[in-house]
Amino acid sequence: MGTEVYMAGVGMTKFGKSSRTLPELMVEAASKAFLDAQVGTIDYILIGVMNVEEFTGESNVAAVIADRLGLSGVPSSRVETASSTGSAVFESGFYAAASGYHRNVLIIAGEKMTHLPTARTTRILAEVIERNERSYGASMPALAAMIAQRYRHENGLSSDRMQGILAKVAIKNHYNGSLNRYAQFRKIINETDYFKSRWVSFPLRTFDCAPITDGAVAVILTADKKLVRVTGLGHATDTLAVRHRDSFTSFKSTRLAALQAYNMAKVNPQEISLAEVHDAFTPFEIIGTEDLGFFPPGEGWKAVEEGLTTIQGRLPINPSGGLKARGHPVGASGLAQIAEVFWQLRGDVEAIRQVQGARIGLTQNIGGLANNNLVTILERTDRYRAIPVYWKSEFNPGNTAPAAIPKDPPSATEGILETFTTLYTTPEGVPSPLTLGFVRTETGSKVLARSRVENLEIGWKVKLEKEDELYYIVAVEPETLLGRMKQWADHSWGTVKRKEEGS
Amino acid sequence: MGTEVYMAGVGMTKFGKSSRTLPELMVEAASKAFLDAQVGTIDYILIGVMNVEEFTGESNVAAVIADRLGLSGVPSSRVETASSTGSAVFESGFYAAASGYHRNVLIIAGEKMTHLPTARTTRILAEVIERNERSYGASMPALAAMIAQRYRHENGLSSDRMQGILAKVAIKNHYNGSLNRYAQFRKIINETDYFKSRWVSFPLRTFDCAPITDGAVAVILTADKKLVRVTGLGHATDTLAVRHRDSFTSFKSTRLAALQAYNMAKVNPQEISLAEVHDAFTPFEIIGTEDLGFFPPGEGWKAVEEGLTTIQGRLPINPSGGLKARGHPVGASGLAQIAEVFWQLRGDVEAIRQVQGARIGLTQNIGGLANNNLVTILERTDRYRAIPVYWKSEFNPGNTAPAAIPKDPPSATEGILETFTTLYTTPEGVPSPLTLGFVRTETGSKVLARSRVENLEIGWKVKLEKEDELYYIVAVEPETLLGRMKQWADHSWGTVKRKEEGS
Repeated sequence: MGTEVYMAGVGMTKFGKSSRTLPELMVEAASKAFLDAQVGTIDYILIGVMNVEEFTGESNVAAVIADRLGLSGVPSSRVETASSTGSAVFESGFYAAASGYHRNVLIIAGEKMTHLPTARTTRILAEVIERNERSYGASMPALAAMIAQRYRHENGLSSDRMQGILAKVAIKNHYNGSLNRYAQFRKIINETDYFKSRWVSFPLRTFDCAPITDGAVAVILTADKKLVRVTGLGHATDTLAVRHRDSFTSFKSTRLAALQAYNMAKVNPQEISLAEVHDAFTPFEIIGTEDLGFFPPGEGWKAVEEGLTTIQGRLPINPSGGLKARGHPVGASGLAQIAEVFWQLRGDVEAIRQVQGARIGLTQNIGGLANNNLVTILERTDRYRAIPVYWKSEFNPGNTAPAAIPKDPPSATEGILETFTTLYTTPEGVPSPLTLGFVRTETGSKVLARSRVENLEIGWKVKLEKEDELYYIVAVEPETLLGRMKQWADHSWGTVKRKEEGS
Repeated sequence: MGTEVYMAGVGMTKFGKSSRTLPELMVEAASKAFLDAQVGTIDYILIGVMNVEEFTGESNVAAVIADRLGLSGVPSSRVETASSTGSAVFESGFYAAASGYHRNVLIIAGEKMTHLPTARTTRILAEVIERNERSYGASMPALAAMIAQRYRHENGLSSDRMQGILAKVAIKNHYNGSLNRYAQFRKIINETDYFKSRWVSFPLRTFDCAPITDGAVAVILTADKKLVRVTGLGHATDTLAVRHRDSFTSFKSTRLAALQAYNMAKVNPQEISLAEVHDAFTPFEIIGTEDLGFFPPGEGWKAVEEGLTTIQGRLPINPSGGLKARGHPVGASGLAQIAEVFWQLRGDVEAIRQVQGARIGLTQNIGGLANNNLVTILERTDRYRAIPVYWKSEFNPGNTAPAAIPKDPPSATEGILETFTTLYTTPEGVPSPLTLGFVRTETGSKVLARSRVENLEIGWKVKLEKEDELYYIVAVEPETLLGRMKQWADHSWGTVKRKEEGS
């Protein structure tokens, strides 16, 4: 493979609501990275931003930033993969350096979001959702909520217990964020605060969702040997539509990316000292820790309950506070994760949140609704490394070759409810509250549907009607033994574990 | 340097007005590239599109396209550098392959533009212009027109003669396009057609400006040895604002990119068999051929008059018809240029426009108003190559280190008119016609100004007034000998050649 690539330095703005422009934020981050890295020249600039066109009405951002930095002349390109842009631009910088054509590469990622009304921001963010699912009024929180519901169902957790687990993730990340000078939220929250916060989309509350944030991060990569080396990269897509996937509770894009990254770095999940895991929604952190091989499938929630993922735990997850508390300027978050791991490895964070003896760190960054995910592994070059062992993942990538995607049925009249949510903050023009569910039809296809029925349970048989191109759930037939058996038999991804609580 | 990178295959849609969506166009181009390349797998996908957010309301396009291709799982990123996106995404693909981490890289670039009203498209395209210059109502054609005016002035050409030269470029490119099955315009035009076409921005007419176009192109790069190799890449930025530059008539971003590409490929401009040069506006083709070292500075117009750049000429420029006649789907044009050169080298174009014995081809692609330009060199690996000689450019890149950009003057009251235009198709909300000029003030700074005076000449002294943050030319003092001498003395880029016509 190509030239070895190291991290020379990092810079970051404070995350939060800022009155400054995106170029100003990016220049601040880059200036700090220059001071940190002390490299002589910059050969290539890469800019990561998700949607500068609609958020700030600017185009041509790669040239804008090169000019603002006084680096006009130096080549500059912009890279974008929705909310994983920060990691994707880092990946592009890695290839530019690994190719041997560029010695020092400056990577800057940022987003300016808080100046727009929330309804407009929500609409812009929802453009990453597949058009059919978007047409039902599904927002990112609505889809995440249905994934959380399904996770609860498959793992046999009561609603109360699931809420307690999500609360623990939020409380942990807010605690970590309270210790991080760059974080948007510096306030500790407790269970009372969590349970007082309003519903966004059942079972997700405000404290389960990452905020709207302004911020920028810069990283300088170099071919010169430095303390921290980029040893693993993985990147994989998945179907745009959630209904075209086999599983709601495991992201193929994370699992493929993780496998690539572990193989490239020649490490096992067990060797990771700390990880930044994409927690735009609290259930995603739990699912992420399973997909990354940190905990067995269906057991990420136990690790949260047992406190294994706190800074003092066996495997600290999001010691920065994560997207939840550090904030989520969409195009910047992936690079902020990488910056945090870099600082942790170098021993540069506030002492109280420093992970002791950190040697190898990992980031996982989700693009869109988990259809363009990246995993990045950084490693200290001066610490003892066991003889590399290839990770034997239970996940067989041979089975992940693009399956024939089930065709959307021309018309369906009934099916089994796979998951559902009630969305309270709906996108512009959509009635609120809005109950949505995914229904598996007789042919095995899934459809998204709005519900006209109030009492729903996962596994119940539902009747569908189509109106103006949208499906509606119009009646339910409470779960029967036959229905449940059929559901089990048809479930094609892993084993559906219907455990007793606490087992 | 890294792994050698070859072109395995190419695919393109017909350019023009299409009723299909951007993903449909991209899938068609990719399918054709698959058929052409016959590679077993795709390891990485790169998508080039300039402004999918505002043109089609889509976000997350890299994942959308991977999914549509049935390649969900494969990593996919989007790259953007305004109108040079097609070349920048190719460059990113090159690094990914050259790094050794990806064997076969699929690159797709496209844009869907024709479905919007022209006024809206013009506004979206104008977002690449620096904010201050945009605030005067300057559009891309207005800036290009002022560059053409200055070129005429510096080379001592009469207005009529300049028009005749621009007409020759347009007629040549329309002729070439008439032979190209992929071109938007397949109709030959003559001088009468040209001079009947309406003014866009004096001295540019409709036939001087590339059209609004839908289209997509795909290229597959590979590390396996193939007939055509990517041997040279160059990429450079320039100041966003035109008024911050030393020269109107030479693009530093092209010259720097060309120098890099020639050095990497170890070829001289004289060894190039054919070139696709960014002719979004006819004067840009002429300036491009000078900046690329094909013709001496200030002599590109002679090459046009002498017919050196026709398909049968010494150095065929834009045998495809160029952006002018093939069409200009902004994010795709750079990759379309590369596809044309690839086909020319392989001998795959219509016989009548085949450049005989083509061995090395070059593309030059402009981002924004020439602030993010790329040069790409492709070469047949089976033909005789002279012993490489490094090109000794007259252009000294040592002098191009970012100079201190002159501060915009807080207020200026007079200066010398450096160039001007009258714009007829103004952006939304701007009065038409609108006369704009660049004025060099006493401190050496340049300002853009709207004119309230009708008779203007380059070199004249003008009086300025500021109103609502905009400068206005309110009076002129016809050129004096003193004024002209002052202008010559201050001109800091190369030599101002005030030749007699025809010298």
